[in-house]
Amino acid sequence: MADTTVYRSSTFAPVNIAVIKYWGKRDPKLNLPTNSSLSVTLSQSDLRTHTTASCSSLYETDTLLLNDSPQDISGARTQACLSSLRSLRRSLESSDPSLPALSTLPLKIVSRNNFPTAAGLASSAAGFAALVRSIADLYRLPTSPMDLSKIARQGSGSACRSLFGGYVAWEMGSADDGSDSLAVEVAPASHWPDMRALILVASAEKKDVSSTAGMQQTVATSTLFKERVEMVVPQRMSEMRRAVEEKDFETFASLTMRDSNGFHACCLDTEPPIFYMNDASRAAVRVVDAVNDKAGRKVAAYTFDAGPNAVVYYLEKDEEAVAGVFKGILGDKEGWEGEKGKGVQEMEAPKEVEIAAAKLKMGISRVILTGVGEGPIKTDEMLIDEKGETVV
Amino acid sequence: MADTTVYRSSTFAPVNIAVIKYWGKRDPKLNLPTNSSLSVTLSQSDLRTHTTASCSSLYETDTLLLNDSPQDISGARTQACLSSLRSLRRSLESSDPSLPALSTLPLKIVSRNNFPTAAGLASSAAGFAALVRSIADLYRLPTSPMDLSKIARQGSGSACRSLFGGYVAWEMGSADDGSDSLAVEVAPASHWPDMRALILVASAEKKDVSSTAGMQQTVATSTLFKERVEMVVPQRMSEMRRAVEEKDFETFASLTMRDSNGFHACCLDTEPPIFYMNDASRAAVRVVDAVNDKAGRKVAAYTFDAGPNAVVYYLEKDEEAVAGVFKGILGDKEGWEGEKGKGVQEMEAPKEVEIAAAKLKMGISRVILTGVGEGPIKTDEMLIDEKGETVV
Repeated sequence: MADTTVYRSSTFAPVNIAVIKYWGKRDPKLNLPTNSSLSVTLSQSDLRTHTTASCSSLYETDTLLLNDSPQDISGARTQACLSSLRSLRRSLESSDPSLPALSTLPLKIVSRNNFPTAAGLASSAAGFAALVRSIADLYRLPTSPMDLSKIARQGSGSACRSLFGGYVAWEMGSADDGSDSLAVEVAPASHWPDMRALILVASAEKKDVSSTAGMQQTVATSTLFKERVEMVVPQRMSEMRRAVEEKDFETFASLTMRDSNGFHACCLDTEPPIFYMNDASRAAVRVVDAVNDKAGRKVAAYTFDAGPNAVVYYLEKDEEAVAGVFKGILGDKEGWEGEKGKGVQEMEAPKEVEIAAAKLKMGISRVILTGVGEGPIKTDEMLIDEKGETVV
Repeated sequence: MADTTVYRSSTFAPVNIAVIKYWGKRDPKLNLPTNSSLSVTLSQSDLRTHTTASCSSLYETDTLLLNDSPQDISGARTQACLSSLRSLRRSLESSDPSLPALSTLPLKIVSRNNFPTAAGLASSAAGFAALVRSIADLYRLPTSPMDLSKIARQGSGSACRSLFGGYVAWEMGSADDGSDSLAVEVAPASHWPDMRALILVASAEKKDVSSTAGMQQTVATSTLFKERVEMVVPQRMSEMRRAVEEKDFETFASLTMRDSNGFHACCLDTEPPIFYMNDASRAAVRVVDAVNDKAGRKVAAYTFDAGPNAVVYYLEKDEEAVAGVFKGILGDKEGWEGEKGKGVQEMEAPKEVEIAAAKLKMGISRVILTGVGEGPIKTDEMLIDEKGETVV
């Protein structure tokens, strides 16, 4: 009798927001970057992808359901991940014939985000990290997170950093086959646990250019980009590692803001120019500058990915000075009603940012309060039942 | 009996808008730039400063009236111009004692712009060019426009380019004393007379950072700036000269847009970042991109100085495709009612720029239609009468 078992494994995986940005591929097929990058993994209580991977002879083909919508998985990126994982499983099976031949079974994967995908919140990083981690668990692969990060990287570059919690570097590597382009832990979340992040979600607006297309336009046309990848980022990477190791927030903040600005400068230097920051983003910059000026030291650091949302990093002890000022401006928006938001004391914004405050109010639709968090976490909460049906 | 003659001379001087931008000083005192720049002088029928310089023993001290407001002329920049001109006059007087000793007389200077100073339209360039040219005429200096440009440069860097009409380069020079940092004519207006410029004046908003302060912050902090001044601009300068000489609008347009974006990229890469472009500026970029896409060639080129105003260059033959589309979007704003604007046929904007068109409508308050024009022009229209009184 044929084995009709539904093999399952489930994981939660986090979002990460880079403080030294990934922008540009030296090999678009293998997702090999033009420079190393460094990120903070964010807490999964606020932002996470929950994925159940299953395989069974009951299934006909590989399928992926994301937030209840069937996804096309025939693309080269998803296929690269699936075939790498199957091939690792196949090796296990051939060395131990007692193992069930899971590598031959169709996969059914069900994935759900606890945050709106449309908000432009690095959902593909969490998505591919969860996909790779859950299938690796399903296959009981002994593969290290570093090696899994190489697989996730092929799905979405920044996904490799979501295989770890805390402070994570993606080492660009130099090998043509990508074998040394992987994520490593710079420090666990417990090393510097009081790092907070306030995300200002911009009102929905069509993205200027997808990051995949945009970064290769920059590589091809920006005259300033070479300086960034060859000279500027390598130095920032080593300074940022030291800042994290020494828990030196002022240096962390300065490097984070400079690198975000330098990345968007290269976008602007692209032909045609790419704009991700809008008037609300620039207003967030001005408020952070004013908050830092008022404090007389850097207590807050903004960073912007390929979109207008601001992520503002700060330490728990400076919550009032940072999140408090933003609550003073944006207190009527969604996102403050949870446990973390309720406790924030509203502060008055510095007078000189009156115009910026008005622009923030117009351009920001909600906030998310979060902080540094753990890497992927295995869970018994299954999105697929024992019969292979999606749990509603 | 003492000579109480009021000696007078009057000039009109033009605005210029750079297509290869000046940003950064290697010597802030002498206004020596970190890179050469190239500009188009704009027609004085639309934008000009009218200045009358006079000197007389009737006056007590040097004075300057701009748009009927007394100006402080004790600043180092104005003083550098006045003392250079006086010293040249003194030399003339000592070699020919029959000349009246104008160099010893107090100066009264009256200046008026035919456009709102507040609009952020490079008024200091026209202002210092008119100041220097009118005093040089008053003193009957045999000095060449190139030599006068060195004097005007000390007042306001970009003013040196307003000593010439047409297409003008400011050669950065290499001498420590600034003796080879001057403006030269690349081509007269008559060489390529069909160059038009549509200026989109952004709704009044406080400027982010003055260009004087901003450019030195960029020099001090931008990590990408060195590449711009050492590698990028020198190559663009030689390509731009060739484009002007060959009347190659497509190359002119491509270089103009890239250099504007590269300059603003360096502003963004400054710590703290400097933003001059706003959402309306970016909307203008998108409309120009769409106009070029639709034409299948570059018929329009945007450029932005240290503010949100867009200047869009195009050739007369493409008026409908360029100015027509902007009139279709901004037809209800001030500025189309004149002779040049009335004749422009309103065109429908490409569908894909619907959002950009809406942002332009919100952010632009008026337009100015102009084109390439002549350098300073001597005039008999005096703003000071024979008795030394200001003409109202």
